[in-house]
Amino acid sequence: MPELPELDPVIHGKLRLAILSLLSAVAEAEFTYLRNQTGSTDGNLGAHILKLEQAGYVSVKKTFIRRKPTTIYRLTERGRTAFTSYVRNLKQLLGGQLQ
Amino acid sequence: MPELPELDPVIHGKLRLAILSLLSAVAEAEFTYLRNQTGSTDGNLGAHILKLEQAGYVSVKKTFIRRKPTTIYRLTERGRTAFTSYVRNLKQLLGGQLQ
Repeated sequence: MPELPELDPVIHGKLRLAILSLLSAVAEAEFTYLRNQTGSTDGNLGAHILKLEQAGYVSVKKTFIRRKPTTIYRLTERGRTAFTSYVRNLKQLLGGQLQ
Repeated sequence: MPELPELDPVIHGKLRLAILSLLSAVAEAEFTYLRNQTGSTDGNLGAHILKLEQAGYVSVKKTFIRRKPTTIYRLTERGRTAFTSYVRNLKQLLGGQLQ
């Protein structure tokens, strides 16, 4: 380890990590799904998703499901690359501790 | 995940993660070993180890090796518990992404 790998500061927070981890496992997810899975409040979840949107890691789509307005999120290609790289760097930092 | 696990803020920085990961793998380590393995500067490494000492996660011993003053670090029991817990929570946050 002559130079430590970087940990993307956009990702390096527990709620953002959880959001990206959830989105990486599905094609797309509703806001309410993310809220239920993370146990977050609307406000907190919305603020952190916005940061991920602004970084280009997450895309948002507004639609209607059974006439109810619904917000759907998806990991972008850029987000997937950043998350994969984050996990790889984390593994490198932690050496064998994650097995 | 009804409630996200906490990530200990004392540990949640790449250099501190690397220090604890290195110390968790050995009985004890010299300052120069940690510096060489992390590629850090003396000042930066010293500052971050001090934070880990202040949290009771790392203990320090000053000694002489071949008449040269040497500083030796060791993970405390408290540090080992905190690091193990950190890694467990991280795994939980990241779901299956670390396999």
